[in-house]
Amino acid sequence: MTAQFSKKSEAWSARFSEPVSDLVKRYTASVFFDKRLAAVDIQGSLAHAEMLARQNIISQSDLAAIQGGMQQISTEIADGSFAWLLDLEDVHLNIEKRLTELVGDAGKRLHTGRSRNDQVATDIRLYLRAAIDDLTLLLAELRLALVDLAEQHAETILPGFTHMQVAQPVTFGHHLLAYVEMFGRDAERLADCRKRVNRLPLGAAALAGTTFPIDRELVAQLLGFDEVCFNSLDAVSDRDFAIEFCAAAALVMTHISRMSEELVIWMSPRVGFIDIADRFCTGSSIMPQKKNPDVPELARGKTGRVTGHLMSLLTLMKGQPLAYNKDNQEDKEPLFDTVDTLTDTLRIFADMARGITVKADAMRAAALQGYATATDLADYLVKKGLPFRDAHEAVAHAVRICVDKGCDLSDLTLDQLKAFSPLIEQDIYQVLTLEGSVAARDHVGGTAPRQVRLAIARVRAQLADVRKD
Amino acid sequence: MTAQFSKKSEAWSARFSEPVSDLVKRYTASVFFDKRLAAVDIQGSLAHAEMLARQNIISQSDLAAIQGGMQQISTEIADGSFAWLLDLEDVHLNIEKRLTELVGDAGKRLHTGRSRNDQVATDIRLYLRAAIDDLTLLLAELRLALVDLAEQHAETILPGFTHMQVAQPVTFGHHLLAYVEMFGRDAERLADCRKRVNRLPLGAAALAGTTFPIDRELVAQLLGFDEVCFNSLDAVSDRDFAIEFCAAAALVMTHISRMSEELVIWMSPRVGFIDIADRFCTGSSIMPQKKNPDVPELARGKTGRVTGHLMSLLTLMKGQPLAYNKDNQEDKEPLFDTVDTLTDTLRIFADMARGITVKADAMRAAALQGYATATDLADYLVKKGLPFRDAHEAVAHAVRICVDKGCDLSDLTLDQLKAFSPLIEQDIYQVLTLEGSVAARDHVGGTAPRQVRLAIARVRAQLADVRKD
Amino acid sequence: MTAQFSKKSEAWSARFSEPVSDLVKRYTASVFFDKRLAAVDIQGSLAHAEMLARQNIISQSDLAAIQGGMQQISTEIADGSFAWLLDLEDVHLNIEKRLTELVGDAGKRLHTGRSRNDQVATDIRLYLRAAIDDLTLLLAELRLALVDLAEQHAETILPGFTHMQVAQPVTFGHHLLAYVEMFGRDAERLADCRKRVNRLPLGAAALAGTTFPIDRELVAQLLGFDEVCFNSLDAVSDRDFAIEFCAAAALVMTHISRMSEELVIWMSPRVGFIDIADRFCTGSSIMPQKKNPDVPELARGKTGRVTGHLMSLLTLMKGQPLAYNKDNQEDKEPLFDTVDTLTDTLRIFADMARGITVKADAMRAAALQGYATATDLADYLVKKGLPFRDAHEAVAHAVRICVDKGCDLSDLTLDQLKAFSPLIEQDIYQVLTLEGSVAARDHVGGTAPRQVRLAIARVRAQLADVRKD
Amino acid sequence: MTAQFSKKSEAWSARFSEPVSDLVKRYTASVFFDKRLAAVDIQGSLAHAEMLARQNIISQSDLAAIQGGMQQISTEIADGSFAWLLDLEDVHLNIEKRLTELVGDAGKRLHTGRSRNDQVATDIRLYLRAAIDDLTLLLAELRLALVDLAEQHAETILPGFTHMQVAQPVTFGHHLLAYVEMFGRDAERLADCRKRVNRLPLGAAALAGTTFPIDRELVAQLLGFDEVCFNSLDAVSDRDFAIEFCAAAALVMTHISRMSEELVIWMSPRVGFIDIADRFCTGSSIMPQKKNPDVPELARGKTGRVTGHLMSLLTLMKGQPLAYNKDNQEDKEPLFDTVDTLTDTLRIFADMARGITVKADAMRAAALQGYATATDLADYLVKKGLPFRDAHEAVAHAVRICVDKGCDLSDLTLDQLKAFSPLIEQDIYQVLTLEGSVAARDHVGGTAPRQVRLAIARVRAQLADVRKD
Repeated sequence: MTAQFSKKSEAWSARFSEPVSDLVKRYTASVFFDKRLAAVDIQGSLAHAEMLARQNIISQSDLAAIQGGMQQISTEIADGSFAWLLDLEDVHLNIEKRLTELVGDAGKRLHTGRSRNDQVATDIRLYLRAAIDDLTLLLAELRLALVDLAEQHAETILPGFTHMQVAQPVTFGHHLLAYVEMFGRDAERLADCRKRVNRLPLGAAALAGTTFPIDRELVAQLLGFDEVCFNSLDAVSDRDFAIEFCAAAALVMTHISRMSEELVIWMSPRVGFIDIADRFCTGSSIMPQKKNPDVPELARGKTGRVTGHLMSLLTLMKGQPLAYNKDNQEDKEPLFDTVDTLTDTLRIFADMARGITVKADAMRAAALQGYATATDLADYLVKKGLPFRDAHEAVAHAVRICVDKGCDLSDLTLDQLKAFSPLIEQDIYQVLTLEGSVAARDHVGGTAPRQVRLAIARVRAQLADVRKD
Repeated sequence: MTAQFSKKSEAWSARFSEPVSDLVKRYTASVFFDKRLAAVDIQGSLAHAEMLARQNIISQSDLAAIQGGMQQISTEIADGSFAWLLDLEDVHLNIEKRLTELVGDAGKRLHTGRSRNDQVATDIRLYLRAAIDDLTLLLAELRLALVDLAEQHAETILPGFTHMQVAQPVTFGHHLLAYVEMFGRDAERLADCRKRVNRLPLGAAALAGTTFPIDRELVAQLLGFDEVCFNSLDAVSDRDFAIEFCAAAALVMTHISRMSEELVIWMSPRVGFIDIADRFCTGSSIMPQKKNPDVPELARGKTGRVTGHLMSLLTLMKGQPLAYNKDNQEDKEPLFDTVDTLTDTLRIFADMARGITVKADAMRAAALQGYATATDLADYLVKKGLPFRDAHEAVAHAVRICVDKGCDLSDLTLDQLKAFSPLIEQDIYQVLTLEGSVAARDHVGGTAPRQVRLAIARVRAQLADVRKD
Repeated sequence: MTAQFSKKSEAWSARFSEPVSDLVKRYTASVFFDKRLAAVDIQGSLAHAEMLARQNIISQSDLAAIQGGMQQISTEIADGSFAWLLDLEDVHLNIEKRLTELVGDAGKRLHTGRSRNDQVATDIRLYLRAAIDDLTLLLAELRLALVDLAEQHAETILPGFTHMQVAQPVTFGHHLLAYVEMFGRDAERLADCRKRVNRLPLGAAALAGTTFPIDRELVAQLLGFDEVCFNSLDAVSDRDFAIEFCAAAALVMTHISRMSEELVIWMSPRVGFIDIADRFCTGSSIMPQKKNPDVPELARGKTGRVTGHLMSLLTLMKGQPLAYNKDNQEDKEPLFDTVDTLTDTLRIFADMARGITVKADAMRAAALQGYATATDLADYLVKKGLPFRDAHEAVAHAVRICVDKGCDLSDLTLDQLKAFSPLIEQDIYQVLTLEGSVAARDHVGGTAPRQVRLAIARVRAQLADVRKD
Repeated sequence: MTAQFSKKSEAWSARFSEPVSDLVKRYTASVFFDKRLAAVDIQGSLAHAEMLARQNIISQSDLAAIQGGMQQISTEIADGSFAWLLDLEDVHLNIEKRLTELVGDAGKRLHTGRSRNDQVATDIRLYLRAAIDDLTLLLAELRLALVDLAEQHAETILPGFTHMQVAQPVTFGHHLLAYVEMFGRDAERLADCRKRVNRLPLGAAALAGTTFPIDRELVAQLLGFDEVCFNSLDAVSDRDFAIEFCAAAALVMTHISRMSEELVIWMSPRVGFIDIADRFCTGSSIMPQKKNPDVPELARGKTGRVTGHLMSLLTLMKGQPLAYNKDNQEDKEPLFDTVDTLTDTLRIFADMARGITVKADAMRAAALQGYATATDLADYLVKKGLPFRDAHEAVAHAVRICVDKGCDLSDLTLDQLKAFSPLIEQDIYQVLTLEGSVAARDHVGGTAPRQVRLAIARVRAQLADVRKD
């Protein structure tokens, strides 16, 4: 049996050409994905060096040497000549090693008073802060595109659905503004998250702080951090900000998924409310009339990706004792992919929103189907004095008759209408039109074209502030 | 075969005594769990009624009748005499029906200008706002309990761990303050979330607003909302705030899980750093010396519960088209259970923190094991002029010798130490003590007792503000 | 400030009427939810006692006393007279305590050679095994209902969609059978999971086995377990089976969510393919023509619930050291709720499937829209010798002309068709009909009515086996 | 304001150098990650072509051309000369396009009777089937390594923990076998999953089957599939198998996380039960005695990764209508990363298990702490006739005295012991030894060395079967 074993084992081993020791090296290294932190790693190191020099922990000439070396390294990375080495594990050691090659002892002094634990935590925060700033602008772009479209369709009427059943007529502008609100909240959440991202871990060193007379406030100021992390053990092990960001991102994608779902349904031939510009769709090689809304579908699918990353990070941190554990190295890939997914998706959606063609006739036809103004009739009766629940009953009776007759409420004569309630007068016919219905919902948040325009103005003012910053 | 079928089918059906139609009724009803919203439902209705009266949509006498009826209903609910009916589906219809029984037509007028869609959204927000306020205070209690314990142990030394290996000595007060920071961020997140909870959906009606001349700002003011939801379609379908709350809650529980993990390890006999008061533990009926840290273990397990609820809600909202869909009824149970889990856990942890007995001797003994002050020796050499990386090498050499000799660095003679570097002088021995090590990390965020006391003062000031509000 | 503190604290404490010590008791107790295990707990105890007696560990008279006492307890539980006590923590101690009250020393001997750790693990497995058996039958009921409906509609044609765009005609029977396949796989997964559920932990005692000469195989046989758990440490701490079950359940609900999504879309007035019986819907009090498909929407929402429970359990077990930890008490509520959710949902869906009214005309009309038979024309050309990719090009050309003309392919004259390819003959018109198209897909798995009937026969044979068991 | 806007917009756009249209192309393309399917894509195409030829749908010379072309393409891919083009979107079109370049019309005929929808589903299944087979062997390797270590330590005693408190002595071999059981169940789950993976979707074409006289059973046979997918709509949209695989994978990683947690704790200096070979650890550059168990920590962190992927896929499929939607393209990356993570982790753990050094003295010392044999004393009394619950009380009394005296139970004299129960005799001292305790748990699943050896033999026999296959 043992012979059998070893032969099988060999056969199987043959499938895996890499020896385990190389595999361990690759398994534990992070340079393949964390090299995207190179720019912020250098930025952090320069601020750290400047502080060390100001505190006389290193000399001015050491500082100058470090600054020169880092400039050289930045150039090498930019032009692709920098040699990333797996053996140096991560972005930090790769850069520090190269620095020491270039400038000697000054390079060896750079790490004074810090550790990779606080260094990597600082890098991720610098990276994520920039990402949040980009995403905030992208959300503003998307909102602006939706607002522009909403403005064109402040009076275009489509059926408002609940339970995917026709409920009441709404304006398409109003419908689009619902998404503007969602993406607006997303921007608020990113802004709130940014406050907690923008705190400086550097100075926490390995876990307990350092014995050097460092000036953390200075480093914070040089790097644009709002304040320092106030506890060193927490500073090196905290990944809350990454989880909070991914939770906010999962909500962004949830909104994207809802909008995508609607775009896909609206593009479906049975509905036919809109068309999406060709470059966001694929055709079929055989059915040229067919346009698959690939981008919304794919974006809807990517919701899972980001929700999954959030789950990864929550699982990662669950039950971890203080302070830094190697588990934390797993924080980066989910975070990076979340940033990339949001960045690409928001850019494309902002562009796609401007590529939507509205088929107002189909929308209007759909709104006329299904007694969408029945509520208006009920409200009319209430205003004439009938209690709300009694008015409902009267209208239900009327609609049932119309269903039998196969006609709309507005097709009934005044006498026929009066049979349901003597309170009904000639002015009812205006109430029963789609235009009358939407215009009557004229309070803040309502679907009336006037309100849509006010809401647009409000959002435009907000967005102007975002873009000005 | 068919005969076979029907017999089997009958046998099986016998196991399920409930007919399907009753099951459907129970499946779609929510009154069993949403009746906890009764108080806020009444609160919301009273504000709505007051606004209707001020706008002359209902009369003052209707308002008075509604107010009287609601007072009666509140009493009935409080004393348990209110008859909750499954047939009335939910808390809203149960209350409205009873109101109409009590006050007649005025009751039928209450629902004017609103719908269950905006009503339930308002109720949940009122409920969650109160829950956030409670949890904020509970977080403050827990932080205060930890701060009090930290103050007692500002100078108690235990090993600081990375990778669960001894790294550097830290003070226990400093270690506890790491959790104070975490729970402080949790409070920040709840405060941020509260801003988005505290917006009024009422007035959105079914989905499009209402034709009545309502005054939403007045209702917002009466109910203490910061502002109104600015889009009706969004207002009735938005559950972001519940997801955001659950994400913040998942982070609270993640922190609880980390603290619990440490408590469990610290209680383990091989470590023995602390003891937890008996009422948070179970003994074994047979081994009275055994104390199982049940509460921290269970709390660690409950992390999954809250993370699961977050995932439920994200799944719930994924891909939902506008506006309200029945899916949304599933938002309540995860939210309620999250609130309950946090409320109970935080209350117990605040109390448990005060029931921790610190075994300072065991902590100290552990800190003396493992060359925890090796970094201090390196820093000493750097301060004498050696580049950081070279100092590291010298110390590594010294520690290796100590491992061979089975002694500590401080057990070496000055001559022996000088062999590793001629820069070493007599003053090294103070550096190599645990007390010297922690005292030297004397910058903001560092583990020095002086910094611990400063940090405590900072947190106490914050907490005073929280409690004052 | 301190005065301020304590006053606030009191104000706040007043909101929580329960003292912390009672809260701890409630927090750590499980009897409120684990009493549903009473029947299987008794079943397990009886088998354990019988084994103890056969092995002469307890006497025959002890066994008889235990059997008598348990019968009494079962009766008390059934008639509601059993007094469940929070102070006795869980279902196990409640029952054992009552047994000792009833039968004295024999009751005190029941726990010989076992522990609550292996006892609770056995109970959950017995419970889950029964739940799996019920769910297996419920899945069979649902499949049968779908098969019956599919049989009625083996020839009813609707458009097959990809990307929610019309692709090719399919039969409605074929479409329904896709769900039958999904629920069939679900049943397979439950059967596979059952193998791993159906192993006996009892005999593992606290964690290491027992010193008594127990006969685990006998207990396994008495309780219908396939085999024993082969390692005691694993036996008390393993919750894989619960996670595996919840994963299988999450897939069931994923299928339910997909079917629900289609039902909701099909019910939407723009599509109008089906109607669902009234008792699964709610109307609107004001729009009697409106029917909200509440049950499918709610079921779609419940997908999140079950996915959330799966995530809870995975989080729960992550990083738990051996053997039993109190965390594991958190396994029950997610598991129970998953079982309940599936049981209710499957029962209702089986019934609802029989309450679907098919609107064949609307389906047919939709299938005629969108050149659904373009692929058939291409296949026709390939069969006449044109390479597949070239045939595609010719058809694309033809469809483009039809789009311009606003007609269907079958509306073109033979001459017009020949312009696209001289290979086209008179027989093309049969190919271009919906009936011709579906009938031509006549291989295993294809949409042809003949294949639908063969597939139905295959499933019926499978289901007969399930029901016979 | 608008001027302001556009300037900001330009500033911001400058940060994103890629035009949106290129971005859309990249966003929707999959060739960057799906090219790893090239080998199985070719394998599937060859089987499809062979079937087409046997059914006379294509000619023998077309078949020969396709076979020749594919050989050429395989060579080009292997030697890196194949030009993957983003414009050709995915692996399928890249290969088909190249084939047509190489062999002309025969290449254009390859796609007859299939579609990318069934093609990609077939590819993923072929890929995953091979991955499952590899992982099954890797699980066997890991189990074998653990079994070998267990055999060496069938008699080595360490404390068995519950709640991380010392409970009863167990053998280290027994403890390791708990993990062998877990990984054994993982292998079972993979085998069950494989059954559902190993079904052929090809022949489903776009969604409805094809009009060509294909022979799906022949293709299944050529590709080693157990059977065909019986419904075409299901065949193209089913991703259950990927979810089921990821759920099984999440359990593998959960087990890895539990084992890792123990390894990390066992390596911690306060515990010191084991040492792990250097190549799986990192040292500290400054503390050479320090060894960080990087691999177990990182592996524990990767649990989140796989759980996250499971969550992604469940979210992806939630609520998707039939049949194929573009969302499904998002199935691949989570699946591939799950396979990679498991493959690397299992390979490393199998090797690492062989690199564990056991510190038996530390284990024994820990087992002697904490009255680990108290249960044995209770069992002893029960065997002498005392009811179990009364025996427990007597022992509790004895242990309490020992705690006061600061001695072990076995340190008491016979007279002292008799004071707790007159049933105690001289033979008690053997019972109270660690060896006596473990040897007495001598039933299937118990910790006795004899049982450990029996269990090892049982597992070895199983593994021999796995390896033989």
